[in-house]
Amino acid sequence: MHELRKDLLLGRWVVVLKDSKGPDYYYIPSPEETGECLLCQEKSFSKEILRIGEVDSWKVKVIPNPEPVLRVEGELGRRGVGIYDAMNSVGANEIIIESPYHDKTPEELGLEQMRAVIEAYKLRIEDLHKDARLRYVLVYKNHGRLAGAQFNHPHSSVMATPIIPKRLKEELDGAKQYYGYKERCIFCDIMHEEISKVSRIVLETSHMIAFCPFAPRFPFEVWIMPKRHNCAFQETSKEELDDLSHIMIELLRKLKALFGDLPYNYVLHTAPNRIPRRNHWHTLGDDFHWHIEFMPRLQRTGGFEWGSGFYILQTSPEDAAKFLREV
Amino acid sequence: MHELRKDLLLGRWVVVLKDSKGPDYYYIPSPEETGECLLCQEKSFSKEILRIGEVDSWKVKVIPNPEPVLRVEGELGRRGVGIYDAMNSVGANEIIIESPYHDKTPEELGLEQMRAVIEAYKLRIEDLHKDARLRYVLVYKNHGRLAGAQFNHPHSSVMATPIIPKRLKEELDGAKQYYGYKERCIFCDIMHEEISKVSRIVLETSHMIAFCPFAPRFPFEVWIMPKRHNCAFQETSKEELDDLSHIMIELLRKLKALFGDLPYNYVLHTAPNRIPRRNHWHTLGDDFHWHIEFMPRLQRTGGFEWGSGFYILQTSPEDAAKFLREV
Repeated sequence: MHELRKDLLLGRWVVVLKDSKGPDYYYIPSPEETGECLLCQEKSFSKEILRIGEVDSWKVKVIPNPEPVLRVEGELGRRGVGIYDAMNSVGANEIIIESPYHDKTPEELGLEQMRAVIEAYKLRIEDLHKDARLRYVLVYKNHGRLAGAQFNHPHSSVMATPIIPKRLKEELDGAKQYYGYKERCIFCDIMHEEISKVSRIVLETSHMIAFCPFAPRFPFEVWIMPKRHNCAFQETSKEELDDLSHIMIELLRKLKALFGDLPYNYVLHTAPNRIPRRNHWHTLGDDFHWHIEFMPRLQRTGGFEWGSGFYILQTSPEDAAKFLREV
Repeated sequence: MHELRKDLLLGRWVVVLKDSKGPDYYYIPSPEETGECLLCQEKSFSKEILRIGEVDSWKVKVIPNPEPVLRVEGELGRRGVGIYDAMNSVGANEIIIESPYHDKTPEELGLEQMRAVIEAYKLRIEDLHKDARLRYVLVYKNHGRLAGAQFNHPHSSVMATPIIPKRLKEELDGAKQYYGYKERCIFCDIMHEEISKVSRIVLETSHMIAFCPFAPRFPFEVWIMPKRHNCAFQETSKEELDDLSHIMIELLRKLKALFGDLPYNYVLHTAPNRIPRRNHWHTLGDDFHWHIEFMPRLQRTGGFEWGSGFYILQTSPEDAAKFLREV
């Protein structure tokens, strides 16, 4: 019998199939390489927002997205449009160039390079939190065209939005409700459960764990979480960031060993911008716990997933964790 | 300046880009044809759940999914698994074969064929609502491998679940909240707004409208809705179903004229199974309004969409509606 499982945080249900499929089950079309790489052409960068490393031996650079969806200039201009709501697309939209080399990823370049990428995440969140118009800073990575990547050059993206995105709001609300009921952090509870059960753990270090969640959306989905309760990524310690870099490298190497160059996304979920606003202290997210959701894009979604928010898993999280631990 | 728009029902925000892209912008990889078609091999069907038409000149057949995710047999077995929740995958998982011909779609075969498909949707919902263990009947269509289709043969799917899926629960909650505030149906209000504004209307008949929603997830997304307030698809009148069949054919022809054989999903959103249960009368959805959400899969989703529930539209709904009206 297959099993239906409920996500503790969002209340989403998933179907975990009984006969878990191994890595060979997932077919990955090879990525297309198209034209000249924009991120290789340093001279075309209109502006350098951040550089880690020296001018001529840089590790990581942050530039404005050449085709920004959100722009830093201007007022929000909230307005009604008939019965609907709209506002101007104020915000920030940046590209984090993760490597000076088009075909060398941070996990291939090693710990120091990955650490520089993670440092860039932290510095950009810190900086963007100073802008009182912005409510949320979303850091994410699309790798591979099938995962929506804009470039083939290793890169992450930053999107700072004037609203708290719906998915984050749901997480914050879920965490707050749980806290109200149990007086404990839902993520800390999940972490203790996972550490005591072991079967879904992929990697564990002194400060961080990586595990396959009980009710994920994607096969081989992995969440990475600090052991210390902390809602804000920018308040992470040096040791925690070192551990995170190590875990990211190991996880990417493991996935590559199982699937080759797979398309994936990961998203950093951290607390919203905490500049105090009228009536908004109660949503500031101290009951939240930052984490990274890592989503291999091995399976296409269809009408069922889009229409129901319900997911079908061909590989159980326990088996996925086993494959990832043992590779 | 791009525009941020809020979805009235779910509170989801989307970015509508200023310079709308025309149909040529969207590249569609051609679908792969693989092996023998299971749905062409009538003798392999273990069971026929429903047939519309005569034994040897049938129009539409409904069969159990040969690899069911949910099964009709057994008890729900709700249980705790550590701190989490799980239950058995009780439910129904059926395939609606929309055409006796592998390469002739209902829209190609004409009104009578499409009407038979729509009739099958209605009959299956009616029948599955008799099972008190089932809370929701989801009818949807995946067309094209990129849209998650299991077969190339024209087909829709039925998934009856023992829980109300998260996405539907959100819609029901959104509709109920709006009703509580305004004492009006949110979908009726949206429909009146669209009919009075005209710019997002794609098709209109006496009983139905098709329009591009103000804040969709996908470019060229279209919602189809009955003009009469009615939460339950199975209570739709004969005339309404005739109109719906006409609208479906026209919409599919228009999309094909713009994009060729594009991958798409559509999902029927109807009220949950209304067998009375303790404490559940209040979620029965009389403030809901059935509709079909039609989603062309012209763009890949990435970390931003998955992490935020926020969508970026390369084509505004007003321009999409214009392209669809004029083709």
